[in-house]
Amino acid sequence: MWRLYQYTLCPFSRKVRFACAVKGVTVELVDEFPWDRRDGFAALNPAGQTPVLQNSSVTLVDSAAICDYLEETIERTPLLGAGPEERAESRRLIAWFDQKFYGEVTAPLLSERMYKRLFTREAPDAAAIRSAARNAEAHLDYLDFLLDRRRWLSGPAFGLADIAAVAQVSVADYLGAIEWDGHDPARTWYSAIKSRPTFRPLLQERMEGLPPPSHYDKLDF
Amino acid sequence: MWRLYQYTLCPFSRKVRFACAVKGVTVELVDEFPWDRRDGFAALNPAGQTPVLQNSSVTLVDSAAICDYLEETIERTPLLGAGPEERAESRRLIAWFDQKFYGEVTAPLLSERMYKRLFTREAPDAAAIRSAARNAEAHLDYLDFLLDRRRWLSGPAFGLADIAAVAQVSVADYLGAIEWDGHDPARTWYSAIKSRPTFRPLLQERMEGLPPPSHYDKLDF
Repeated sequence: MWRLYQYTLCPFSRKVRFACAVKGVTVELVDEFPWDRRDGFAALNPAGQTPVLQNSSVTLVDSAAICDYLEETIERTPLLGAGPEERAESRRLIAWFDQKFYGEVTAPLLSERMYKRLFTREAPDAAAIRSAARNAEAHLDYLDFLLDRRRWLSGPAFGLADIAAVAQVSVADYLGAIEWDGHDPARTWYSAIKSRPTFRPLLQERMEGLPPPSHYDKLDF
Repeated sequence: MWRLYQYTLCPFSRKVRFACAVKGVTVELVDEFPWDRRDGFAALNPAGQTPVLQNSSVTLVDSAAICDYLEETIERTPLLGAGPEERAESRRLIAWFDQKFYGEVTAPLLSERMYKRLFTREAPDAAAIRSAARNAEAHLDYLDFLLDRRRWLSGPAFGLADIAAVAQVSVADYLGAIEWDGHDPARTWYSAIKSRPTFRPLLQERMEGLPPPSHYDKLDF
């Protein structure tokens, strides 16, 4: 049995949870808040970050390493594409969302709207939130651009690029920084993912003390 | 023939150049400075970052995607490990150096010691440099920890974890932020890599107007 150390608004935990659900891998969830700096967690992952996926024989760290492990060990539902070029395009987009979207949008939002509100009780930095929302707008333009040309983000098939993207987008949406008007291709894509039984459980969860906007879990938003 | 868009102090370009050399892939180097924001380069990579590897039929973006492509298409000299667990450990460490070492050490050094000096002619922020040097010290401790237990970073064989690590470490060393004293395991590891004919060409290059410390290209440092 796999145990996943994660918390509900961690985008990289969402990515692994959604990938596990699509691959048909059952995981037991363990709440882990990296900012608690729990000693036992540092022993699992010296980087101190969620997610960590563990069973009795192996400990997997880093969402990209975990997803590659799932892709290599579970042949059902391939998620990276058919040949080396398709896989390279999937990986380019995964890096885009894991690093660029996260750095420009999700990380500042988590810091300003989640961490400061729930843990340090500081006032959020309004300029940082505006900057993250502007960056989110540019990323939605890029989603629209891709989805005007492709059925899913990396090509004709749903895969890890979509999973990496929706993990970030759904957290930014929970934190109120996504303006969907004017982004019909991205909205149609997100609505299709929201309706998947493998994704819906994520939308039901709440971070205590931090409610999402009312449209957050609606299929029609 | 492959063309690699890169610049000499880009750690991710170094990673791809070293991986190509180890795999026996010849590349033509094209100097590309991301901060120039050249239109033609944005068309190749909308993220605007080096490296980009291109031939007449395919354009590869993101150093991790490029290295995975090389690993998948060139069977000679496997660099990720034998089974899924070994590959997951390699990938954990690659992410450590690509993201954690880069964010805590290489990125602030490039900003303070390269970009400000060569391009904006601003004075560097001494506190940011001291912080990067302290972070480098902690990362060298982690290299020592791993190398006390393993022949190479991810296990018994040299591989992409070593390549990702040395790409970052060599740029930080060029920028004068590595204090080798007290880190014999890391020093022995770096010396062994420095002596490889596949790595030595990188050590001969200089960024114009920015000389490295005198020990930088010496095998005995």
